[in-house]
Amino acid sequence: MRKLTIVGIGPGDYDGMTIRAVKALEEADVIVGYTVYCNLVKPHFPDKTFISTPMMREIERCRMALESAAEGKTTAMVCSGDAGIYGMASPVLELALEYGVEVKVVAGVTAASSGSALLGSPLSGDFSVISLSDLLTPSEAIEQRLECAAKGDFCIVIYNPSSHKRKDHLRRACETIMRYRSPETVCGIARNIGREGERFDIISLKELAESETDMFSTVFIGNSSTRRIGDRMVTPRGYSHE
Amino acid sequence: MRKLTIVGIGPGDYDGMTIRAVKALEEADVIVGYTVYCNLVKPHFPDKTFISTPMMREIERCRMALESAAEGKTTAMVCSGDAGIYGMASPVLELALEYGVEVKVVAGVTAASSGSALLGSPLSGDFSVISLSDLLTPSEAIEQRLECAAKGDFCIVIYNPSSHKRKDHLRRACETIMRYRSPETVCGIARNIGREGERFDIISLKELAESETDMFSTVFIGNSSTRRIGDRMVTPRGYSHE
Repeated sequence: MRKLTIVGIGPGDYDGMTIRAVKALEEADVIVGYTVYCNLVKPHFPDKTFISTPMMREIERCRMALESAAEGKTTAMVCSGDAGIYGMASPVLELALEYGVEVKVVAGVTAASSGSALLGSPLSGDFSVISLSDLLTPSEAIEQRLECAAKGDFCIVIYNPSSHKRKDHLRRACETIMRYRSPETVCGIARNIGREGERFDIISLKELAESETDMFSTVFIGNSSTRRIGDRMVTPRGYSHE
Repeated sequence: MRKLTIVGIGPGDYDGMTIRAVKALEEADVIVGYTVYCNLVKPHFPDKTFISTPMMREIERCRMALESAAEGKTTAMVCSGDAGIYGMASPVLELALEYGVEVKVVAGVTAASSGSALLGSPLSGDFSVISLSDLLTPSEAIEQRLECAAKGDFCIVIYNPSSHKRKDHLRRACETIMRYRSPETVCGIARNIGREGERFDIISLKELAESETDMFSTVFIGNSSTRRIGDRMVTPRGYSHE
């Protein structure tokens, strides 16, 4: 059976890829992906055929990858972070039966993990991952999830905190969470993880509400026990330290 | 300043490690970890000094790693999955100032991602990660988080679904979730990810409540739109497929 491999490339730098991801791209003849992600891997796999499409053309991109695989070409599709977390694994799996193509997913390091490593260890307790993008999820559902995660004292990771069209989404999310959690809650922003300009900020929830973020930012909101230790953001696991 | 690197090695096989994790272990003179994880990496780094301690000796292990680093030895501590998700990054960061050691965290692929890749794409929507281990978290807090995650229609990943002492925790968790979610909800169990005996089952929430799991199992509970497509578990992202 023809096969398509969906590869999570991690935050963006070569060292952030798994060995399995590198091998899958080495074995591929054709690499398909969003232009930005193709450009990240191209320097390391210069002899491959790249097929890239701009943002917002996700289904077209999935179909191009499935067609390439159906033609018998060894094809890999690249996603940033993990292929299964707000990635392309799901739309490809929904379409694959149509093309008679078997899909293999290669996991990658998602921004919850790579951003956490940069900040310290904010996710050592139970946590929830929520995207603020309302392109595919109704904003009422996002609002309800923010409330539930805040009530449950989950650490919260926010993907897609803002875009040109949704400048105030993060502020509104913080206001929702502040109904259940102190404005002094320790929060973090990881920016440009694994890319040029990588840096992090540790601030309060109140300050986060007024912060600027972009599509290369991942936001971490601590739970009730999260603390700043030195210059890092840490959620204690609860061990006694004798 | 002396430095300790906490390395997430992913699910357990060499190919599941990131390039950065491999480099960190290559550079280390001393590798510290839980016996099982040390044994996973030992064949690939045979010339290193290994310091391993059995389960339940986490703080002792952290202190041994910090002491080794404080003595000026290039030291890495290994964790399975990601170092920040139920890993050792947090207790090490809590202790590091005592030793004057700088801590660097290398992210890895956590079981939410590696198990998801095996099952298909169960986590394409917002999701919550909850450990059923009540060693460090009161069982009332775990119960409340299960309720909040179920109410918020989050996909739910369960770490540590059972142990010898907690045989009925998964059944009780499923009963809590079934108060908010259909017993027919599509669920998955990923077993021995990246190790011998790797396999997965896709079953209903009702069946999950009666399933046997162990400490090498990760459990995925779908949201209201999760479906079985072919032999895979998929949560659609909501794209239209024209």
